[in-house]
Amino acid sequence: MPVISITTDFGLKDGFVGVMKGVIWKICPQAQIADLTHEVPPQDILSGAIALWRAVSFFPAGSVHIAVVDPGVGTQRRPMAARLGDQYVVGPDNGLFTLLIQAARSAGQPITLVQLDRPEYWLPSVSRTFHGRDIFAPAAAHLASGVPLEALGSPFDDPILLDIPQPERTATGWTAHISAIDSFGNITTDLNASLLGGRGDIHLRLGTAEVNGILASYGQAEPGELVSVIDSEGFIEVAVVNGNAAARLGAKLGDRVEILLLSQPHGRV
Amino acid sequence: MPVISITTDFGLKDGFVGVMKGVIWKICPQAQIADLTHEVPPQDILSGAIALWRAVSFFPAGSVHIAVVDPGVGTQRRPMAARLGDQYVVGPDNGLFTLLIQAARSAGQPITLVQLDRPEYWLPSVSRTFHGRDIFAPAAAHLASGVPLEALGSPFDDPILLDIPQPERTATGWTAHISAIDSFGNITTDLNASLLGGRGDIHLRLGTAEVNGILASYGQAEPGELVSVIDSEGFIEVAVVNGNAAARLGAKLGDRVEILLLSQPHGRV
Amino acid sequence: MPVISITTDFGLKDGFVGVMKGVIWKICPQAQIADLTHEVPPQDILSGAIALWRAVSFFPAGSVHIAVVDPGVGTQRRPMAARLGDQYVVGPDNGLFTLLIQAARSAGQPITLVQLDRPEYWLPSVSRTFHGRDIFAPAAAHLASGVPLEALGSPFDDPILLDIPQPERTATGWTAHISAIDSFGNITTDLNASLLGGRGDIHLRLGTAEVNGILASYGQAEPGELVSVIDSEGFIEVAVVNGNAAARLGAKLGDRVEILLLSQPHGRV
Repeated sequence: MPVISITTDFGLKDGFVGVMKGVIWKICPQAQIADLTHEVPPQDILSGAIALWRAVSFFPAGSVHIAVVDPGVGTQRRPMAARLGDQYVVGPDNGLFTLLIQAARSAGQPITLVQLDRPEYWLPSVSRTFHGRDIFAPAAAHLASGVPLEALGSPFDDPILLDIPQPERTATGWTAHISAIDSFGNITTDLNASLLGGRGDIHLRLGTAEVNGILASYGQAEPGELVSVIDSEGFIEVAVVNGNAAARLGAKLGDRVEILLLSQPHGRV
Repeated sequence: MPVISITTDFGLKDGFVGVMKGVIWKICPQAQIADLTHEVPPQDILSGAIALWRAVSFFPAGSVHIAVVDPGVGTQRRPMAARLGDQYVVGPDNGLFTLLIQAARSAGQPITLVQLDRPEYWLPSVSRTFHGRDIFAPAAAHLASGVPLEALGSPFDDPILLDIPQPERTATGWTAHISAIDSFGNITTDLNASLLGGRGDIHLRLGTAEVNGILASYGQAEPGELVSVIDSEGFIEVAVVNGNAAARLGAKLGDRVEILLLSQPHGRV
Repeated sequence: MPVISITTDFGLKDGFVGVMKGVIWKICPQAQIADLTHEVPPQDILSGAIALWRAVSFFPAGSVHIAVVDPGVGTQRRPMAARLGDQYVVGPDNGLFTLLIQAARSAGQPITLVQLDRPEYWLPSVSRTFHGRDIFAPAAAHLASGVPLEALGSPFDDPILLDIPQPERTATGWTAHISAIDSFGNITTDLNASLLGGRGDIHLRLGTAEVNGILASYGQAEPGELVSVIDSEGFIEVAVVNGNAAARLGAKLGDRVEILLLSQPHGRV
């Protein structure tokens, strides 16, 4: 059965997401639909891009991921769909798919981008404020039903990509950035632990807080302790055991995190 | 595959909605179930009625819409189900379906109302506080499984209808009302743009705020600007570009909005 | 079609639950998945246990219930799955299933517990912080696909059980406890009304508040009145008609509620 996921900044109060499911099932009655999140901060394309990127690879091959964080709805910004490796995405061409496109490129996976310009795959009447319902949901449903990507629109190859800061090598280690804060208050950085070459002898600074070493799990420290672990996607995370690290540290997205490698074993890292 | 939607004021914290899905799948295992919203303000029948009305027409023909905003649960208020055009609804007879019934009447669509009085289509044991689980979910699941509406109960023809204010023609334009505020803070009025006969040369007053003209899209103004657009259902909306209009204006449901037609071209509107 | 429910303390903001659905559908594409709640207070195993217990019996026989409230993730706590009567559960062995296990034991239903120790039924790579995605979702999906429980791991018979306070008989009635507060502010106690032997002539004390008698429904009192009713699972509940009892009384989980039986008819209760 075809699988569709939906990621938006719509919240759940207004019924917008439910309406999109009605539209999808009218076209593709057997689709399985998962909500990824509808609590992307309003208009925050980068947060939406990160949420998508963390989730997509866990879905079955051929899944279709709709994402709508769309401050430019109703303007000339392109509606788009793409095949990125073995997954499909559908949404506005505004940078939402930056991390997925970069990951597919790095992995040498096939990438096909189309501009959604075939109204026969949309609702008959398109509003100026709700393309999630009128364009993206029906296009995704057609894709999930077996319509080829190439039928949905004209190919293009210059998608808008966000300029996302990357971790930087320093004389003593790395400068990383906070890339996500989850609802437990756990703080994820953009530094993949693989860049530390298996070393756990690090010293981490976030604002005025400092943490020594990487724990194998939360359970190795006492409740209330500030610790560093490797998160479920392989990135360096700062957490308070059974507590809320972001609240305690006043941390926010984009904040810098300094990682010091305590001894430099013969210049290898 | 049959489609069921659920709209309540239950919130998502307590598991009430999940239990209703368990009940539905026991009776109709193949049902596709969409949540419309579970954040209708507690006991606010009018808000529930508006949420339903905005969503229902986008669903496949034959969908069953359960709605439970039910301050009278356990009293003599009737449980009901209805066919309204090509959609079904199930819930308390307390005005929740007012707008859908009025829309079906205006459109000359077939309407059949039944009082749910056949306990063989309910759970074996019915509580006094949770008819969503005990009566409405099983009745809806039977309907979705193919049981005819008429088998679920006795016909009636005097549903409770809310007295909902309508926009009024004035000497200089229209007096409208705020009918919905979404999670972005966008303010929707009850004035359908079609009543303006294609004219965009309006002046709009909401409290002490004033807006000139109707934009084609949010993108035609600067972030932070107060604008008027036509919303995704065709109604006049007041918004702040990339901002929260309701918070800025202190607007609330039911507030009046004056729309002035700036010039009266030969008496035609 | 197989049914899976998910209960967590993850919230809906971060996409964790959506990822679990992707993992499930990769293994069991036809699974129907219901969210019970993802707003269990962080790390609050007892609240999770109560939410599960109130919901599970309403699901189709053979349903699989995943629960993840897991302060010990990444430590030596056992991952487990169980058959409890005609339902399955999957999650950490930390007390989350206490009430379901006790209920199955009381009812003399078959109980089989296995420790999840067969990695071939997990994701290929298991993180230290997200066993919901890496172990519990795939194990549950295999179970829903027809893999026998016994194939998933080695049997054990000493599950961790929470020490949950029980209502106590007193000289004049019962001492009960608040076991749940729903989003309307309705307060449920752990005293099943059946223990009152059909008597409604009770006097109830919660802090300094007092209520006389049990109403048949909210509708028998005026809006704003403090009342006692029997809730949808058969327990004594304290509510404010169309209002929020927990907020008014400052009540919280675990608070004691005294129930006085007003006259002792010949010692029978």
